[in-house]
Amino acid sequence: MFVTFEGLDGSGKTTQVELLRKLLEDEGREVVVTREPGGTELGELVREVVLHRDLEIGAWAEAALFAAARSQLVGAVIRPALERGADVLCDRYIDSSLAYQGIARGLGVDPVLELNMQATGGLLPDRTVLLLVDPAGSRRRTGEAWDRIEREDDDFVVQVDRAYRELAELFPSRILAVDGTQAPERLAETIHGQLRQRS
Amino acid sequence: MFVTFEGLDGSGKTTQVELLRKLLEDEGREVVVTREPGGTELGELVREVVLHRDLEIGAWAEAALFAAARSQLVGAVIRPALERGADVLCDRYIDSSLAYQGIARGLGVDPVLELNMQATGGLLPDRTVLLLVDPAGSRRRTGEAWDRIEREDDDFVVQVDRAYRELAELFPSRILAVDGTQAPERLAETIHGQLRQRS
Repeated sequence: MFVTFEGLDGSGKTTQVELLRKLLEDEGREVVVTREPGGTELGELVREVVLHRDLEIGAWAEAALFAAARSQLVGAVIRPALERGADVLCDRYIDSSLAYQGIARGLGVDPVLELNMQATGGLLPDRTVLLLVDPAGSRRRTGEAWDRIEREDDDFVVQVDRAYRELAELFPSRILAVDGTQAPERLAETIHGQLRQRS
Repeated sequence: MFVTFEGLDGSGKTTQVELLRKLLEDEGREVVVTREPGGTELGELVREVVLHRDLEIGAWAEAALFAAARSQLVGAVIRPALERGADVLCDRYIDSSLAYQGIARGLGVDPVLELNMQATGGLLPDRTVLLLVDPAGSRRRTGEAWDRIEREDDDFVVQVDRAYRELAELFPSRILAVDGTQAPERLAETIHGQLRQRS
């Protein structure tokens, strides 16, 4: 099972990934956890370039950089894990590009999806958990210093939130939108139950 | 006029770009010279990552990284120069991706072209000068230490040479294939004459 986690920065993705990992491992499953961009040497370099350097990067260049990191992650980590029967939990994946670059930055869902289908050999997640939070609140929950994308203004965060909700409507059988403001353990149990039902 | 130069490493692209720059400047033209990957901060980083680090990079990841650099170069350098009426000479452009990743690495011409049309907002060169040389000889002409792509075996260089010849047949009105083994000054005059005829 390939499950991705999506939502604004500070929406609790990392916590939910870890809680779900434990629930699955308690069932005796092998679980591979990874994150985007990152998870490979190339991905960590892209993370460094896109998020932490003070560079001018246009929307298409940004989308292509994320697609490059994703392509490498799929080939080196995700596909091999799925092929040996492991569950893969990934913190951000294609929907991040659709929400941020496709909708919020205006490149369009279709061309960004097409780019990513090519880059990943057409690997979509079995299920995507979308953690919905108040866009205003999400900015206060991020503990770390803001990166290049997080420094965007509040209006951008609201646009990304709307973009995610739009994606949940476009892909209702794949995207499970949940209230990310619930108590983390209870939310993890809910997500776990939903994934069991659908798998 | 937007003119790109293509060919194997060591085929004399840099020399021809410089000679053509002089010929055009002698006519009073403003000429902007740039190179790929590179030409912007992001591009130089991509050059460093793709060519000089010892990283595992899959074919699609490589194509996406070059497309990211290209997208930035078009937005920041090439389009502004063309819009103010300058001539732009670029050492490698879309055809490098079509030859190396599309044909030699087997991703296909169409998907790589599509990726690049998206990334550049559909900006194709007015003319592309393809410098044909003997693939075996090209390896001896590169003075610098070999980069990650140049370290590919001889067979790969032969494949790229064939790929370029295939592109010249696919795009005969855009690509001007010339014998790159001629004396550089005479070759530059020939190219200059051909570009004047077609522009």
